[in-house]
Amino acid sequence: MKLGLNLSFAVKRWMKPDVLAKMCADDFGVKHIQFTWDLADPWWPEAERDAVARTYAAAFDRAGLSIDATFGGLAAYSYPQLLAPSREVRDVSEAFFKRAIDMTRAMGVKVMGTPLGGMDYADARNPDVRAERYKTMLQSVRNLAAYGKLKGLDHIEIEATPLITEFPHSPDAAVKLMQDLEGTDIPVMLLIDWGHALFKPLLKEEADIALWFKKCKNHIGAIHLQQTDGRWDRHWDFTNPEGILTPEIIARETRKAGLDHIIQYLEVVTIFEDTDEHVYDGMKKTMDLLNKAFSA
Amino acid sequence: MKLGLNLSFAVKRWMKPDVLAKMCADDFGVKHIQFTWDLADPWWPEAERDAVARTYAAAFDRAGLSIDATFGGLAAYSYPQLLAPSREVRDVSEAFFKRAIDMTRAMGVKVMGTPLGGMDYADARNPDVRAERYKTMLQSVRNLAAYGKLKGLDHIEIEATPLITEFPHSPDAAVKLMQDLEGTDIPVMLLIDWGHALFKPLLKEEADIALWFKKCKNHIGAIHLQQTDGRWDRHWDFTNPEGILTPEIIARETRKAGLDHIIQYLEVVTIFEDTDEHVYDGMKKTMDLLNKAFSA
Repeated sequence: MKLGLNLSFAVKRWMKPDVLAKMCADDFGVKHIQFTWDLADPWWPEAERDAVARTYAAAFDRAGLSIDATFGGLAAYSYPQLLAPSREVRDVSEAFFKRAIDMTRAMGVKVMGTPLGGMDYADARNPDVRAERYKTMLQSVRNLAAYGKLKGLDHIEIEATPLITEFPHSPDAAVKLMQDLEGTDIPVMLLIDWGHALFKPLLKEEADIALWFKKCKNHIGAIHLQQTDGRWDRHWDFTNPEGILTPEIIARETRKAGLDHIIQYLEVVTIFEDTDEHVYDGMKKTMDLLNKAFSA
Repeated sequence: MKLGLNLSFAVKRWMKPDVLAKMCADDFGVKHIQFTWDLADPWWPEAERDAVARTYAAAFDRAGLSIDATFGGLAAYSYPQLLAPSREVRDVSEAFFKRAIDMTRAMGVKVMGTPLGGMDYADARNPDVRAERYKTMLQSVRNLAAYGKLKGLDHIEIEATPLITEFPHSPDAAVKLMQDLEGTDIPVMLLIDWGHALFKPLLKEEADIALWFKKCKNHIGAIHLQQTDGRWDRHWDFTNPEGILTPEIIARETRKAGLDHIIQYLEVVTIFEDTDEHVYDGMKKTMDLLNKAFSA
């Protein structure tokens, strides 16, 4: 099984590339890294942005780690992106994701992933508008795949999120999205997050990882790991006593589904006002637990 | 006393300008609005960004409401901004805040506010580097004030945050910052947030709103309202039963400090996966409570 690490835990805490890369390699014992756009914003002016992003890429390379993908973070997720109510904002979002592809390739990375965005209250509840938002989103993703091919991207990963105002939110919606995106210029795959998949208030009896894995198996490009209570999308580390997951459950379900070859990136979203020391301690204990379970 | 509303509650939920403005005016009975950059990103290409931002400004104007200020949201707060470890990112942040001033003025608004950013773990703990970060930040704020004057901005508001890795985090640090920024081309003032000011784990006996108000009084440009438990920076609405604040405490302390003339913007940060219906219900009840206490 393959353990990876999304750099979300480091946002606004450990921003020096060499220090961060060394922490990931030596303290956390991880090989696979998913870079978050919260460390370098695709919107930043290209010269500065790519200089910053390349410094991270070089530092992780020196530390012997592989940045396998870049992924949208909290900042990008704060905007409605491809599902915005206004045409201007949807167009701006497509431009944003193209810039994210540029940054990804500037780092020498071949996979870019993101959630797709969120709908306005009224749009999400009007079947006709909802269908229209879905349709224009599909076209934008096709455009991004075409742009990605041109730039040498290998594939795009779309994250399933636990909101009825976003696409896709359920196993069936995820499979349908993959079918509707057949024939893109480069493959479009799914990223499944344990905490999103187990979000009870929305998914009810479908909050079942075995169901997600079974239905989506052929489309899964990567997985996000987090501790959760199933009541909210927690993104806790695994020291939280209220969590319903264990490294053993994760290992067992992954093997049962035949997904041992897929990288599972731990994605811990920290509370800004938490101390760096507390965050580090939780990350260290969590990575020790996960490394043990993944290599058992 | 003056009640206001930051549009943070509407992010990714109610993005249609006329619907949102009508909700604020008719349902929430508020007159003063603080626009959040989470609805229009200062980084967006200028033409589209200003078109979107102006649509909001026009809608609120039609509804008879005043957008008194624009303010940084969750997306902007996800980056280290003016306190980043690398020169490139600090320069990019100054450019970002200039763009925020442009957007603010495009909306016909005269006040721009934001937290300043966050330091890297090592920088925050090294007294020499910490002093250097503080110094370059002061120069950047001076540059922003000069730019703001050129563009017709009235003043800038800097938010105090409950982190030792940010400036300013305490009443004394806030007053010192104001002293160190004397003589800027337009005034730089403080925005005090009830939840930040009452954050016990960092501030201990200084987690005392009367102390903040007393020390900072002459520099306060605006206030953020939120319900909190004092243990984390919650940004709850006022229906949460674990909150330590009441509208009555807020009214009493504000009057006691002689800050009745300062606008207090409710800033609720919602959980993305919460339902729109639940968020609306909490906002409606909260604004009813606050309106009652503020007009009593």
